[in-house]
Amino acid sequence: MQKKANGKIRIIPLGGLNEIGKNITVIEYENDMIVVDCGLGFPDDDMLGVDLVIPDMSYLEKNASRIRGVFLTHGHEDHIGAIPYLLRIVNPPIYGTKLTLGIIKNKLEEFKLENEPDLRCASAGDVIKAGEMKVEFIHANHSIADACCLAISTPIGTIIHTGDFKLDLTPIDGEVMNITRLGELGKKGVLMLLCESTNAERPGYTPSEKEVGKSLGQIFSSNKDKRIVIATFSSNVHRVQQIIDISAAHGRKVAVTGRSMLNIVSAAVELGYMHVPEGVLIDISEIKRYKPEELTLITTGSQGEPMSALYRMAFSDHDKVKLGASDLVILSSSAIPGNEKLVGRIINELTKNGVSVLHDAVLAVHVSGHACREELKLMQALTKPKYFMPIHGEFRHLNANREIALTMGTKPGNIFISEIGKILEIDRKGARWAGTVPAGNVLVDGLGVGDVGNIVLRDRRHLSQDGLIVVVASVDAEDRLLLSGPDVVSRGFVYVRESEELMDELRTIAMDSIIDCLDNADVYDRMQLKTRVKDELAKYIYQKTKRKPMVLPVIMNV
Amino acid sequence: MQKKANGKIRIIPLGGLNEIGKNITVIEYENDMIVVDCGLGFPDDDMLGVDLVIPDMSYLEKNASRIRGVFLTHGHEDHIGAIPYLLRIVNPPIYGTKLTLGIIKNKLEEFKLENEPDLRCASAGDVIKAGEMKVEFIHANHSIADACCLAISTPIGTIIHTGDFKLDLTPIDGEVMNITRLGELGKKGVLMLLCESTNAERPGYTPSEKEVGKSLGQIFSSNKDKRIVIATFSSNVHRVQQIIDISAAHGRKVAVTGRSMLNIVSAAVELGYMHVPEGVLIDISEIKRYKPEELTLITTGSQGEPMSALYRMAFSDHDKVKLGASDLVILSSSAIPGNEKLVGRIINELTKNGVSVLHDAVLAVHVSGHACREELKLMQALTKPKYFMPIHGEFRHLNANREIALTMGTKPGNIFISEIGKILEIDRKGARWAGTVPAGNVLVDGLGVGDVGNIVLRDRRHLSQDGLIVVVASVDAEDRLLLSGPDVVSRGFVYVRESEELMDELRTIAMDSIIDCLDNADVYDRMQLKTRVKDELAKYIYQKTKRKPMVLPVIMNV
Repeated sequence: MQKKANGKIRIIPLGGLNEIGKNITVIEYENDMIVVDCGLGFPDDDMLGVDLVIPDMSYLEKNASRIRGVFLTHGHEDHIGAIPYLLRIVNPPIYGTKLTLGIIKNKLEEFKLENEPDLRCASAGDVIKAGEMKVEFIHANHSIADACCLAISTPIGTIIHTGDFKLDLTPIDGEVMNITRLGELGKKGVLMLLCESTNAERPGYTPSEKEVGKSLGQIFSSNKDKRIVIATFSSNVHRVQQIIDISAAHGRKVAVTGRSMLNIVSAAVELGYMHVPEGVLIDISEIKRYKPEELTLITTGSQGEPMSALYRMAFSDHDKVKLGASDLVILSSSAIPGNEKLVGRIINELTKNGVSVLHDAVLAVHVSGHACREELKLMQALTKPKYFMPIHGEFRHLNANREIALTMGTKPGNIFISEIGKILEIDRKGARWAGTVPAGNVLVDGLGVGDVGNIVLRDRRHLSQDGLIVVVASVDAEDRLLLSGPDVVSRGFVYVRESEELMDELRTIAMDSIIDCLDNADVYDRMQLKTRVKDELAKYIYQKTKRKPMVLPVIMNV
Repeated sequence: MQKKANGKIRIIPLGGLNEIGKNITVIEYENDMIVVDCGLGFPDDDMLGVDLVIPDMSYLEKNASRIRGVFLTHGHEDHIGAIPYLLRIVNPPIYGTKLTLGIIKNKLEEFKLENEPDLRCASAGDVIKAGEMKVEFIHANHSIADACCLAISTPIGTIIHTGDFKLDLTPIDGEVMNITRLGELGKKGVLMLLCESTNAERPGYTPSEKEVGKSLGQIFSSNKDKRIVIATFSSNVHRVQQIIDISAAHGRKVAVTGRSMLNIVSAAVELGYMHVPEGVLIDISEIKRYKPEELTLITTGSQGEPMSALYRMAFSDHDKVKLGASDLVILSSSAIPGNEKLVGRIINELTKNGVSVLHDAVLAVHVSGHACREELKLMQALTKPKYFMPIHGEFRHLNANREIALTMGTKPGNIFISEIGKILEIDRKGARWAGTVPAGNVLVDGLGVGDVGNIVLRDRRHLSQDGLIVVVASVDAEDRLLLSGPDVVSRGFVYVRESEELMDELRTIAMDSIIDCLDNADVYDRMQLKTRVKDELAKYIYQKTKRKPMVLPVIMNV
């Protein structure tokens, strides 16, 4: 190894910094490259009509031959959701644990890919060779089963990438995060720690998943007369396991509703991540054979998503379940920022229908899957890294994680808050910024990937605010005659039937502008005519209404 | 009074139920009518482009001659914001405390009203005659000074309307809510309590405003080397007073920035609601004469509002203040649901600029202005109402307030959860629902009031999601000829320069449809032609892109 000891590591986040989600990090040692995670993000409020956001992966496309593997820490969308899009441009081996790959296989069925994906199953403890690097999977606790940290050894030192983690001393599957292995690596010397920052602003420790079980147990005990409906994240296999166990202990049957919940439960049972006592699980169509108090329903929709199973139940639009006064709904989740109003709408509707509702503001029916400050300190204490880069979070979270590293004794000059596309280079002599690669958001809208950008979004925002006015006219350009029109059509501007006068005024203004242009301009210029009509109308409309609809003149030469 | 004892009370909320904001309640005794509050609401996320929401006040317009007065509980926008719009249709006397009317006067300067408004100042303890009713102002604590509950006496009993309130045992102005008077009224007998519900889901008591002062004092003591910038609600006169007092005690000068903050501070000082020690307040332009640690800045923007003073400071766009590592920013507020992301954006940007940021998730730098469960119980215990109607809140809050009344012994049949426009009638024999009056949202967009409704909003939502395709053609209807076009213009759909092929296909499809219609239809029908073009294009576009832009065909007969 000594002979290669002069090589360079390059760490390049392509997503997940200064944003929530879309996590993806490139790690290179000389000519070898690995990719850690490949997630998607959800659109900001101003990305109107956009379905998903994926990372700009042109750097990976350009360096396809150097990619030794994609290594996935766990199966959440913000870590694996862009895999189908990655596989359209490159086809490297993809390593992940059994549940992670199970979820990906499920996902890939919706996509038609030219090449068979090269999925390779790994278990905690496995070490995988990736050119001159080696990647070790280390068991972690998180809000999905089978999550891992990664230890990436290079000829000049070891990099630890935490993925998402928490320390759960009483996890549902019995496996505490492998802090011993992290400590061993720390003892040998860790060159760089890449550590998630989601909860870096929160003091203390994140409670164990088992605390949720305790709360749910108490709720079940004091609601023996009600049907219990629990909404949670479908990927939280351990949460669902607890709900099944508690239901069984209370003699209840469990039915599952919501497409993603059904998918994940069947995958988790099949792969051995979930254990359902004989006869407890029933099909949703069988619930009418039981009394309400003999049933638990597990459902999607904990974020208030329109058309989710819980939403349909709340708005009396679910074909199998009608909720009422004999139901207790538990939202075993917390609202992701931006979803508060959607969740509130469901709570209101349920309450109106006489349903009792419990949520995490009232009782401890949810815990986070991410490490709080004391756990982040523990990660520092175990790994004792020389260099530190906070990842996964907005700037405030990255900065809070930086401050944790400082209190743990890391030198300020050895902490690097990076940005997507920014290259950090490390060699024997030290670590330094070393330029950038292309990085950013690629927007997915329907089947289109990347065909919606700033100009399209700017137009959508404009249209959304004050609507649109289309002015159409036919002219004879040679003889300078207005042949037909102008017609003025509006959408999203005013209620036309009650604004006929205004619409007439607009037509007159458009007509005057066109005729004036035709009569008096030196040369006939369609662009000039359109600009004139647009400006005159926009000016008048703003003065009259203080609104700025998009004005779209279409002038036809006949 | 006995002779009239057979009259009827009618209670009609026109806003504020099943919604946050837009608070307005009509109370009638026979032919006399009073209006309690007249507030505005903010648009929901799906009311694209809408600036404000005001109540449908057609019922008041129709009954103008019966209105004996508008009685305002306090000066927040959700209680007074629709007054300028009310004054366009009726001009009754408006009663409020000094600060409330001061804020209204300020507001009315922006509006040109035909008639001089009839503003009448009232103080806590005053009793105002309103036909056969009498209205007594009772001092309450809230997050704005000079707030009141109202006791409305009628020949058949007393109605108490709480307005917004909390119980503050150590208020900044020294005046605890007049619980004695409320208790006296309760002793005599209260017929109906209309009680706010904002915090009815929250256990315990809302902390005193003074707790914020304590926290701020500690923060000032441990940040003696920094300039301190505090963002809060401009109407929270007591909060601003505390900041000024603490600054003065620490030898700091105070400068104010942000239009509404400047307005309210000057009004509050002028009206005697705020007391500024000599020489403490300086103009924002003078701050360069002081060292950072000698200064406190009080600013708007605590909700992250774009273009607020704090937003401009964060994004280096404020002409007088540049923030950096020597600044501490305190967000003395909590994010109103829906504003979390805006607030987060400011925190990120400040942190990037090296500014320290404190907010209510970290320290007790904000308290609510609304009563929590124990205070709501106290209100029940004091007034011992026969009938109860929870007001001000979404259904979940109204229902939580109902449950509080039940635990306090109110009979279930005597509790009425109403809706806007719904009439509750009370007479000697009892209380009952008695029909409805027109009520709902009137949307304000620019200068337009009520000209944006469901159709316009539906179009804006449609346009915002996938944009627009306009197809224009000129035809000779008689000879059935396509004279010009079709031209296809898109906005907000795809990036046209990279989608030329698709746009060409759309033109071909449009052309084929038009020609086919012209050639083969039995009768030329422009509507039919438009529908055909629209359907063909929409079908093709959806199949090709899974998007549904608005398709707008304009066919001109030349």
